[in-house]
Amino acid sequence: MAATAFAPASIGNVAVGFDVLGHSFQSIGDRVTARRVATPGVTIGAITGTTVDLPLDAEKNTAGMAVLSMVRDLKLDFGFELTIEKGIPLGSGLGGSAASAVAGVVAANALLPKPLTLLEQLQFALKGEQVASGSRHVDNIAPSLFGGLVLTVGIDNPNVKQIPVPPTVRCVLVHPHMVLNTREARSILSKTVSLSDVIWQTANISGFITGCFTGDLQLIRESLEDVVIEPQRQVLIPGFQAVKQGALSNGALGCSISGAGPTIFAWCEQQHAERVRDAMVAGFATVKMASDAWISTLDAVGARIVD
Amino acid sequence: MAATAFAPASIGNVAVGFDVLGHSFQSIGDRVTARRVATPGVTIGAITGTTVDLPLDAEKNTAGMAVLSMVRDLKLDFGFELTIEKGIPLGSGLGGSAASAVAGVVAANALLPKPLTLLEQLQFALKGEQVASGSRHVDNIAPSLFGGLVLTVGIDNPNVKQIPVPPTVRCVLVHPHMVLNTREARSILSKTVSLSDVIWQTANISGFITGCFTGDLQLIRESLEDVVIEPQRQVLIPGFQAVKQGALSNGALGCSISGAGPTIFAWCEQQHAERVRDAMVAGFATVKMASDAWISTLDAVGARIVD
Repeated sequence: MAATAFAPASIGNVAVGFDVLGHSFQSIGDRVTARRVATPGVTIGAITGTTVDLPLDAEKNTAGMAVLSMVRDLKLDFGFELTIEKGIPLGSGLGGSAASAVAGVVAANALLPKPLTLLEQLQFALKGEQVASGSRHVDNIAPSLFGGLVLTVGIDNPNVKQIPVPPTVRCVLVHPHMVLNTREARSILSKTVSLSDVIWQTANISGFITGCFTGDLQLIRESLEDVVIEPQRQVLIPGFQAVKQGALSNGALGCSISGAGPTIFAWCEQQHAERVRDAMVAGFATVKMASDAWISTLDAVGARIVD
Repeated sequence: MAATAFAPASIGNVAVGFDVLGHSFQSIGDRVTARRVATPGVTIGAITGTTVDLPLDAEKNTAGMAVLSMVRDLKLDFGFELTIEKGIPLGSGLGGSAASAVAGVVAANALLPKPLTLLEQLQFALKGEQVASGSRHVDNIAPSLFGGLVLTVGIDNPNVKQIPVPPTVRCVLVHPHMVLNTREARSILSKTVSLSDVIWQTANISGFITGCFTGDLQLIRESLEDVVIEPQRQVLIPGFQAVKQGALSNGALGCSISGAGPTIFAWCEQQHAERVRDAMVAGFATVKMASDAWISTLDAVGARIVD
């Protein structure tokens, strides 16, 4: 008995929602195949794809640890062998460790006698993600598992809500060929924020969510701007301003850092997507940085069994 | 030619939306009667009601200054005499100065040869409010003028969006017999906020707005909590904790300070409104503070001509 699950990449923060918003990105993702084995426990048979230097020890691997916590907490009398196919570059800020954890849980869940709810699966994926990030961050797990633009409120028992995105909106991702360490990107952040920036950011996330619910692209455009985190982190990404200005001057609704970076995302209307992508790639080229680029819908489609 | 307008009271901030959210409160408000006079300019004939010691000099009165700015900016060849009937207690945190400004503009607007849009009226009301608060705060003006729960993004050309509220929700207001100065309530606020509180507040306002759009009362309950401003301001309101605990233990979805205080508001479902109100009044009684209390729907009905 085996099942293969695909879990999409995800963009944490979505500029205005540091640690609370995220959205799935369908064009890339990780695949995990789970095979039932007789012995309770988890082994990792192979890791292929964009990143192969990940730990094969299940306790140190996000997918491994996520599925291992299922085996243990559910007191299963069988185990799993996992094969991981990474489609998401390591350290890209695209939720690669979350996607592997989610894909592992979704694949293993398909082999359970009694499948779990999405919120139960979320909890197990979180335990895997914890191995990679050192803390329980749900803002990549939830969008990869549920799909679309997702708000998560609360930590221990997070409330997950999908927010509709106007169907003409596309997301452009440009990943420069460099690696940023998530812990470092977090450690440079100031521990305090000025009250005036708090008000501004609060207005922006409120406008952004309201614009999504009401299909008001102009409000999304005015609101999709991070005044708290991006000004601190952009220095870690060579060419950031060139990429952002390129996106905005070619019709993007907004452009910011995906998660902790270095990948940069932009939202735009469908008809501008290729122009925005090309401008962003050209922005990185101004600092002689090669990059990969993708375009995705923002459909509310999460992780799923594909085989 | 004369017209009388009613503008509802309003609750600024709504706990989670400091300076960006507000909602109208239909049960109390100010009325302004505007009478066209031949001479360009504005005079104030009389002020009656809950507060009568307000300036009769139009340049120093919020309604007077709002209408005067209309006369000047629109280059009108006639003027207005205003009669103001205050229904909102002074210094209550219920947007009294905003309501007078809004009612003045709406009444005068009805007497123009070519009426203004709501956003144009908003700009004139803002100029009146500026006289009272010393700064341009739109979070009372917009809900009083538009009605319902209102988000305002931006200052110079604010974007105003109405957010639907589940129809079973009521707002309870309890106004203690004391006065708080808005400037003082603002001056005690710390100029910085910890990043962890920013994340928490961001999650709360996002959950609150999402709960309103999706009619999810449980999410509203979990999100309607101000972790930034209320902890600093509650010390200015004797009995605050007793009032809040009384509201929450009687079914309220949330309870916090209206605007800069000292009035306290709670959201609850219709069937709990009277119990919540009584518990809040009893909370103030524990510190020997008399209070007035009202219950209102959250209908999206703003300022209007009533005569």
